Amino acid sequence: MAKKLNIGLVGCGFMGRAHSNAYRRVNNFFDLEYAPVLKAACARDEENLKAFADQWGYESIETDWRRLIERDDIDAIDICTPNNLHKEIAIAAAEAGKMILCEKPLSMNAAEGEEMCQAVEKAGVANTVWYNYRRVPAVTLAKQLIDEGRLGRIFHYRAVFLQDWTIADDVPQGGESNWRLDAAAAGSGVTGDLLAHCIDTALWLNGSIKDVTAMTEIFIKERMHALSGKVEPVNIDDACAFLARFDNGSLATFESTRYARGHKALYTFEINGEHASIQWDLHDLHRLNYFDHGDDSIIRGWRSIHVTDSDMPYMDKWWVPGLQIGYEHTFVHHVADFLDNLAKGQSTSPTFRDALETQYVCDAVLKSAETRQWETVPNA
Amino acid sequence: MAKKLNIGLVGCGFMGRAHSNAYRRVNNFFDLEYAPVLKAACARDEENLKAFADQWGYESIETDWRRLIERDDIDAIDICTPNNLHKEIAIAAAEAGKMILCEKPLSMNAAEGEEMCQAVEKAGVANTVWYNYRRVPAVTLAKQLIDEGRLGRIFHYRAVFLQDWTIADDVPQGGESNWRLDAAAAGSGVTGDLLAHCIDTALWLNGSIKDVTAMTEIFIKERMHALSGKVEPVNIDDACAFLARFDNGSLATFESTRYARGHKALYTFEINGEHASIQWDLHDLHRLNYFDHGDDSIIRGWRSIHVTDSDMPYMDKWWVPGLQIGYEHTFVHHVADFLDNLAKGQSTSPTFRDALETQYVCDAVLKSAETRQWETVPNA
Amino acid sequence: MAKKLNIGLVGCGFMGRAHSNAYRRVNNFFDLEYAPVLKAACARDEENLKAFADQWGYESIETDWRRLIERDDIDAIDICTPNNLHKEIAIAAAEAGKMILCEKPLSMNAAEGEEMCQAVEKAGVANTVWYNYRRVPAVTLAKQLIDEGRLGRIFHYRAVFLQDWTIADDVPQGGESNWRLDAAAAGSGVTGDLLAHCIDTALWLNGSIKDVTAMTEIFIKERMHALSGKVEPVNIDDACAFLARFDNGSLATFESTRYARGHKALYTFEINGEHASIQWDLHDLHRLNYFDHGDDSIIRGWRSIHVTDSDMPYMDKWWVPGLQIGYEHTFVHHVADFLDNLAKGQSTSPTFRDALETQYVCDAVLKSAETRQWETVPNA
Amino acid sequence: MAKKLNIGLVGCGFMGRAHSNAYRRVNNFFDLEYAPVLKAACARDEENLKAFADQWGYESIETDWRRLIERDDIDAIDICTPNNLHKEIAIAAAEAGKMILCEKPLSMNAAEGEEMCQAVEKAGVANTVWYNYRRVPAVTLAKQLIDEGRLGRIFHYRAVFLQDWTIADDVPQGGESNWRLDAAAAGSGVTGDLLAHCIDTALWLNGSIKDVTAMTEIFIKERMHALSGKVEPVNIDDACAFLARFDNGSLATFESTRYARGHKALYTFEINGEHASIQWDLHDLHRLNYFDHGDDSIIRGWRSIHVTDSDMPYMDKWWVPGLQIGYEHTFVHHVADFLDNLAKGQSTSPTFRDALETQYVCDAVLKSAETRQWETVPNA
Repeated sequence: MAKKLNIGLVGCGFMGRAHSNAYRRVNNFFDLEYAPVLKAACARDEENLKAFADQWGYESIETDWRRLIERDDIDAIDICTPNNLHKEIAIAAAEAGKMILCEKPLSMNAAEGEEMCQAVEKAGVANTVWYNYRRVPAVTLAKQLIDEGRLGRIFHYRAVFLQDWTIADDVPQGGESNWRLDAAAAGSGVTGDLLAHCIDTALWLNGSIKDVTAMTEIFIKERMHALSGKVEPVNIDDACAFLARFDNGSLATFESTRYARGHKALYTFEINGEHASIQWDLHDLHRLNYFDHGDDSIIRGWRSIHVTDSDMPYMDKWWVPGLQIGYEHTFVHHVADFLDNLAKGQSTSPTFRDALETQYVCDAVLKSAETRQWETVPNA
Repeated sequence: MAKKLNIGLVGCGFMGRAHSNAYRRVNNFFDLEYAPVLKAACARDEENLKAFADQWGYESIETDWRRLIERDDIDAIDICTPNNLHKEIAIAAAEAGKMILCEKPLSMNAAEGEEMCQAVEKAGVANTVWYNYRRVPAVTLAKQLIDEGRLGRIFHYRAVFLQDWTIADDVPQGGESNWRLDAAAAGSGVTGDLLAHCIDTALWLNGSIKDVTAMTEIFIKERMHALSGKVEPVNIDDACAFLARFDNGSLATFESTRYARGHKALYTFEINGEHASIQWDLHDLHRLNYFDHGDDSIIRGWRSIHVTDSDMPYMDKWWVPGLQIGYEHTFVHHVADFLDNLAKGQSTSPTFRDALETQYVCDAVLKSAETRQWETVPNA
Repeated sequence: MAKKLNIGLVGCGFMGRAHSNAYRRVNNFFDLEYAPVLKAACARDEENLKAFADQWGYESIETDWRRLIERDDIDAIDICTPNNLHKEIAIAAAEAGKMILCEKPLSMNAAEGEEMCQAVEKAGVANTVWYNYRRVPAVTLAKQLIDEGRLGRIFHYRAVFLQDWTIADDVPQGGESNWRLDAAAAGSGVTGDLLAHCIDTALWLNGSIKDVTAMTEIFIKERMHALSGKVEPVNIDDACAFLARFDNGSLATFESTRYARGHKALYTFEINGEHASIQWDLHDLHRLNYFDHGDDSIIRGWRSIHVTDSDMPYMDKWWVPGLQIGYEHTFVHHVADFLDNLAKGQSTSPTFRDALETQYVCDAVLKSAETRQWETVPNA
Repeated sequence: MAKKLNIGLVGCGFMGRAHSNAYRRVNNFFDLEYAPVLKAACARDEENLKAFADQWGYESIETDWRRLIERDDIDAIDICTPNNLHKEIAIAAAEAGKMILCEKPLSMNAAEGEEMCQAVEKAGVANTVWYNYRRVPAVTLAKQLIDEGRLGRIFHYRAVFLQDWTIADDVPQGGESNWRLDAAAAGSGVTGDLLAHCIDTALWLNGSIKDVTAMTEIFIKERMHALSGKVEPVNIDDACAFLARFDNGSLATFESTRYARGHKALYTFEINGEHASIQWDLHDLHRLNYFDHGDDSIIRGWRSIHVTDSDMPYMDKWWVPGLQIGYEHTFVHHVADFLDNLAKGQSTSPTFRDALETQYVCDAVLKSAETRQWETVPNA
């Protein structure tokens, strides 16, 4: 019989759904010592909260996250709020001795993140940040291929995260649906929301970033604010691109925007090594493209690996070769790893400390966009 | 509060998992009057059965499907057994007044299917067959585009279902894992297992098939039988291809094999109409390719539609544009439609009667492979 | 200094251009003992002929092919006329001791082709048929991979040639532009025009075809005839599909149509072998897709080989890796091989005799479409 | 009868072949008032030169380009030498009143280019630079779609030119084959060789670039020099990436390298506009990808336009829909346009002055890589 892990979830939006689904499904597919229990959901709007709790089977609700943290029957706090609340909740939870699973990005900036790291490390509580794309099987496979040395010396890294949903100027900023467009709630625009994903993957696959030069742009300068009801200046970055050098000597380009017509959530990365190269694309997340220079020259080409066989990362838990999984499974994998590591007394990457490194890169990027200089990334 | 629908599942293999997952998830994502309850799971091997019931949260178990059918607390029987048991279970369930959700193919042959149809129709019980690929959003979209008349007169239909898992001659036939290779349990090989999917979709999208000419082949003539422990002749078709004419005057080619190296579960179809054409591919099931001759000539080309926006069939229930779903969601959609239709007093296609038409085509195909003649498909 | 080979070209349409271009370019790119000379062009319409001869630099013209054949200064006759003239011209040319390069298909039917073979063989003149797709570098590479045994035992072959240019019912039949729609000039429709290509490649790559079952269709039953000016019945096949068995035990499907909306000249083939599979597509003719089951399982996938490196067939003659060639180069390759073989005293495949085998398959296909029976292909 | 234009070609390497082929073919396919005549080829190595002249049918040879320019029977000088000779030859040719067709990049740097522009403008001679990718039909189509306003306001431009041929450290620098690796002959590495193409296209499609920030890298620091026979420092940039802002407010990323394993000549660009987006890729140069937000939402997706129909730029001159052309045709198109413009008394873009703008961007990029600052691009 699995040991129970009582979850208290804060924030019932898109991410609240994704995490709840992961908790509910993980034990159907993974054999684990622990089983999460949906103990309590927490949000300010009680009506929405009740509907959410009903739909997902939460045993109870709280409208104040401080009350949630005080409860003895909660083992772990899952933070799905807008970014501006991460720090306060996380530090309180750590002080209350709760494990913490925090949505990305870790924090509004590196200074906040530093405080959060100190809190969880002082409290000695398990902590992890939901950079879910590490656990797309094709991305995990990329990590494996790199770790096996199949690429050799790395020359280039390039990543983009392209969307097009804010092109219309009648999209409001702020409020429940669009807090990601409100600097006060989100901290930054595409940098913290989208590039943070690209950076997290890059640090994981290719090591630390040394320095960056960046540019940002706000294409639509004013939008109706959903909270004030007034047209207000837009303060988040609509687009951001930067050049970078990694510690391993490789060069990189990164770019993100919400103004790339035709792309919904096109996160792609490519890594060029001495012996082999890798490409991945979130729009076909079940495939990995791989070029191996070691192939006989007459049959050498980019391979499209359909990452569905049972010897692929995580895929022995799902269906049969050829049958693809989707977006939400990455969260199931994250929970499965978290529970497995818990049983083994291990941390689950990315920890707060791991995720802090991404914040340092984001800070350097945003600073460079202002100074128009190369900026060095501090060590996390 | 949703009304409960008590499910009794027979067969705890691959399909038992897929259906159980669908029942467990459907109410998290769809707003429905009914909620399925995993009341009882049934299989012969008690040890496996218990593990299965534990993993999926079934309230009880039965090792004899007749006992399951007798239980008053069961509303619907879900048949996930090998094909040779479909008829007997379905008829008994119908006579006991149970709703029936039966895995595809409906039956070993059309004669059996005819009896099953008569049983459910006489009993007046809700019935459906799990041809799940109809409910891939991209396939449902194809149906919608055709029904809107966007393709115009149809000239051609072509479909293949290609796999490669039986190429090695040390794959045994029969037993729990490989009953699909045993004619006694499966009825036929790729015709009933794979082409049945292609035919079901084709009948749905393009109407009835008039006649066919076919060929089949057994590439590996003998395999160890898992039950007898002896090398025995293989009696199922390893490969089958046929030509067909539809009632609407269009021509078709169909092919299926388990000897197409490089393809895991490559079900593809293409439809060529007067004005537009459509292509779909199970290996990238979240995309639909569409060619519209009405486009301006200088910007005319095949479009790759990433079927993830909320105006796409079923997709308002899942995530956000760009984030793909996978194989298992097709079963969730089927359950959702079944429950919704139940509330409305409507039948859920494909019904047994709908699925019988596929059996008639399969029978004609297998007969033609023997007679080497064109065979007419009887009306279902 | 290269030896001159004086060419007399009959027929100044599309193929006349393609061949003329090949003759003019071959010595710029290939080092050969022979150099073709554009000695004379021949066609009935003198005005068009003069313009054509001017544009391509022919030294002289003839309006009667019999006069051309009589000329002592002509070494080789190139036949680019509609199909119904192939036999008469070829036999006369052979009797006059001329080499012959004949457009495909060889003849209206196998009986004619048999006569033509006997004529060239009796005369002992060099002869070849322009099945140009054999000499797409990617297709030649496919042949090489098969000959090296990389695919192992072959299970499946499938080919289609899809076009959409005759969907409109106001396309006339007959005349200079549309003789391919006129049975009297073309012999058959897609079977001789398009499937003949597919069959030629298939025989080359996979050996002889044993028997076939086929269906054909005429979607638009009547069209204006360009010669008579009257609406007349259409007698060519608009579409043709057939099943086949090869002598090596593999199964095949073939299909061709001019009613596949969205496809201009989509000739594709796929071969599934025990160890590896191959795909090719005329719309991206510079690529070959290859799946090798021998790859490590975690990096196994379909490879897209960009056939532009200098170790690829013919590609050392052209540009540098990554820079693609196109359709017309296949004719240059054919001429280069012809001239090279001439110097070595070797025949250039496909010879008339090789091409006759395709005629036998076409005849069997067309007969089967009438008899609705499997038809055996006679030995060529 | 076409008027003759006598060509004197300087440099018999890869580009000499590409241009010679273009001159020889253009009148076979295009109806023009002028016909180029291969009057003289010029190079220092007489043996190679003779072989080259023989193969391409040049009427005469010169081993000193000054002699070539002095000849009265030469109308136009085509410069295919290494970059370090462009200026001197071009200025001398202009002073001698010759038309000039100069390979790209125009010059070693903008200062040289400025002198060259002044020379041709003072002399009033026709001049053009062979940025051939403008005349890939798909790229010309992109220009047309932009000029028609189909994209609307432009937000983003991104381009890469990726190769992998210099990864091995035993590739020498300098000499006939590898002068592109020798800074003394080439001026720069990938910036002048590859990014110059990307910049030329970008300026044409998207207008002027305002400022840039760049980084460059030399991955292999020393190579054998083919001329000195000694290992010498490498002074060209192996890789270069830069961020840019266009005058129209759009943001851009550019990157080029010869260390991207798996890419031979992967020049790609993408443009994201308010209403539509465009992608192109040199590895499949006959296709243009296009996304039109104006499509009905349920059939909206990236279209792959197979740019082979006769209403596509230049394509009425070649074959029939579906049959692709290749790399070398871009040069034929350039010559055709040059001859056509000559007849009309018009200049042929890119002129020296147009190409100078690319030099200013290259200079700013290389400077920024040194200063690690944003650099403003001067007006050309």
